[in-house]
Amino acid sequence: METSRAAAEARDAADPLAGFRARFAGTDDSAADGAPNRLLYLDGNSLGRMPRETPAALTRVVEQEWAGGLVGSWSAWIGHATRLGDALASGVLGARSGEVLVADSTSVNLYKLLVAAADARPGRDVIVACADDFPTDRYIVAGVAAARGMTVRELPADLDEGLDPAVLAAALDERVAVVVLSSVAYRSGALHDVAAVTRLVHDAGALVLWDLSHAAGAVEIDLAGAEADLAVGCTYKYLNGGPGAPAFLYVRRDLQDQLRQPIWGWFGQRDQFEMGPAYDPVPGIERFAVGTPPVLAMAAVEVGIGLIAEAGMGALAAKGRALGELIVALADEWLAPHGVALASPRDAGRRGAHVTVAHPAAWQLTQALIDRGVVPDFRTPDRVRLGPAPLYTRFVDVWDAMDRFRGVLESGEFANYPAEHARVT
Amino acid sequence: METSRAAAEARDAADPLAGFRARFAGTDDSAADGAPNRLLYLDGNSLGRMPRETPAALTRVVEQEWAGGLVGSWSAWIGHATRLGDALASGVLGARSGEVLVADSTSVNLYKLLVAAADARPGRDVIVACADDFPTDRYIVAGVAAARGMTVRELPADLDEGLDPAVLAAALDERVAVVVLSSVAYRSGALHDVAAVTRLVHDAGALVLWDLSHAAGAVEIDLAGAEADLAVGCTYKYLNGGPGAPAFLYVRRDLQDQLRQPIWGWFGQRDQFEMGPAYDPVPGIERFAVGTPPVLAMAAVEVGIGLIAEAGMGALAAKGRALGELIVALADEWLAPHGVALASPRDAGRRGAHVTVAHPAAWQLTQALIDRGVVPDFRTPDRVRLGPAPLYTRFVDVWDAMDRFRGVLESGEFANYPAEHARVT
Repeated sequence: METSRAAAEARDAADPLAGFRARFAGTDDSAADGAPNRLLYLDGNSLGRMPRETPAALTRVVEQEWAGGLVGSWSAWIGHATRLGDALASGVLGARSGEVLVADSTSVNLYKLLVAAADARPGRDVIVACADDFPTDRYIVAGVAAARGMTVRELPADLDEGLDPAVLAAALDERVAVVVLSSVAYRSGALHDVAAVTRLVHDAGALVLWDLSHAAGAVEIDLAGAEADLAVGCTYKYLNGGPGAPAFLYVRRDLQDQLRQPIWGWFGQRDQFEMGPAYDPVPGIERFAVGTPPVLAMAAVEVGIGLIAEAGMGALAAKGRALGELIVALADEWLAPHGVALASPRDAGRRGAHVTVAHPAAWQLTQALIDRGVVPDFRTPDRVRLGPAPLYTRFVDVWDAMDRFRGVLESGEFANYPAEHARVT
Repeated sequence: METSRAAAEARDAADPLAGFRARFAGTDDSAADGAPNRLLYLDGNSLGRMPRETPAALTRVVEQEWAGGLVGSWSAWIGHATRLGDALASGVLGARSGEVLVADSTSVNLYKLLVAAADARPGRDVIVACADDFPTDRYIVAGVAAARGMTVRELPADLDEGLDPAVLAAALDERVAVVVLSSVAYRSGALHDVAAVTRLVHDAGALVLWDLSHAAGAVEIDLAGAEADLAVGCTYKYLNGGPGAPAFLYVRRDLQDQLRQPIWGWFGQRDQFEMGPAYDPVPGIERFAVGTPPVLAMAAVEVGIGLIAEAGMGALAAKGRALGELIVALADEWLAPHGVALASPRDAGRRGAHVTVAHPAAWQLTQALIDRGVVPDFRTPDRVRLGPAPLYTRFVDVWDAMDRFRGVLESGEFANYPAEHARVT
């Protein structure tokens, strides 16, 4: 790969998605391109940037729909969670209409679907999870297992390469009710094969519940083609829905009416405003809804999903792979000599859109990078995640960020930062 | 009571809260006061009006904090759920600092606390609920009971007068783990005595979980004084947080570390960003958090809570009672002769801020009122709820709304509306 800055510029000039960058706030930096501290945001895998359309969308929902329409606007809002779900299904997830709902948080959705799945496999007492899965996934699994007297079979994963399908295959037997797994590993970006894993799990008579948080908007997903059972995911990363934006859930159509989630809220009720005596869930995806949907927050999610759908997941995933390849090439050339190791799969086809590197001083390096205008994120104990977002990150942004990373290493200044970490992102 | 329009105008002129009305959108109607279709919004008990400050607060959080600060803004956002909780505790709920959290939906919060409470009373297998409680409360109770093999003791309530404490007392025994009850009944507005009921329940060794959705911002609440155990509630009614705004939960301080909620999400984890292997909930109210908090929506909630706190619950509750008394007086004088019956407690001290009336053609009357610019809400099968909000509803608004109600009845035109109802609010 040609790793000059000129080559990166040339790739930006030829990028069919280049026009999307200007549709995000904080990207109006052409005049500042030469400025040494121009912000290079490589944390779209944690919190996506704000689409410029979002403030107007929020103003519209509050001024016109809430302030203007008042309670009468519920006639429009009532179907919003499924309309957004359908937009996600077709534009992002490769699912069918009526299979996706926007609701609650990823954690709450994971809980609902996990309990529903366990209930659907009576007599099976094991949940399979991945020891390196995102914390909330592991904790939710542990809580459900503890409450039901089930056993968690926590599979060792390679921290860089993800879960080996052979390890999973060996763990599957007639005791397994559900397998919970992230399709893109949060730490390494390792991409699991949704279709192959789903087949393995189905062969064992179990259900699989995917967490798509680090995948949605980053890689192509084909839930229908994979015959995936269940999935959840987040909209504030690559989908740019805003901090704490409502999450989504997916249930394959033929499973929906067999499953019942545990939180029997009124938004899943048939003839909701009859307010009848007994819970009687609607058929279809809305039975997985619970409380009143977050209307304001959904207006921001809608903008984010719309941009992704407009760009197209094929083009986005291809650019995500190319950006990752540039990171890997520059890491090999510039960072490896300083002891920074690649901590993601080397093959772009086995990665999501982020690339992780490892160094014993990862926390200090992260702080030094932030002070130089590069925003990656730190993952304990020794990882730095570099998360370009194909919708708005340019090849030159990656090049410049890696160049500053090299500078931080060469100067040795990162060693002056406190080594302890106590922080959030 | 003097029921002339002039008397209503005089009360508005003397109202210490009068200045708050102008701080809500859609109230700039002084020029239109004489217009026959001026909107008279009496549905603040369902969806509160929009504070004029809200759009700017949202713009600030999206433009400055999200777009500007990006992921770094989490250092400010991370404590927002407890800061808002503390504002609710002191300004609205009569709770102590560290006892309230803003999170999730009312239904999800009810589920979390109900399971935690049932777990805290092992060996007890009954949940007591009210047959006329809000649907989501009854459904959540039924779901938790079904999952745990518990029995629901559903108490008959007078649809107009609420739950008789003697009926509750007779239902309490050593089998009861938890009592779930709304402090203000959604249908009638009947106000239950939080302190007296809590004592009754405690005497039986059980816990009480209050739903404050129709009470918060409408009546004075003293959770600390009542030694209440647990509570949940909604912020989009009298607290004016916007459609689907995040809800709140309360856990009395000395109970917090004894309780563990069932959805073990990462926002309840000690040293959250250590991402350690096992769930280890923080001490205190944050252990009842689950997923990433809804930052944008919380900005709107903050404005709503701020206005209530500024006005003061004493003044708000007093005005709420006075507005209700005017509704009752005018209903007696103008509506009763047409067969419209009061369906709320007659004593203002036993009501929340809404007043309900009953008529066999309630659905048709509601439609006719809406066409005349009066927005109440219909509750199946035969109720019309009139929900003035003391923060922005004037005495003349109530007078004019009741005058139009009288007109609808006198003209008989409501009978021309379709009798079937299929609708939302």
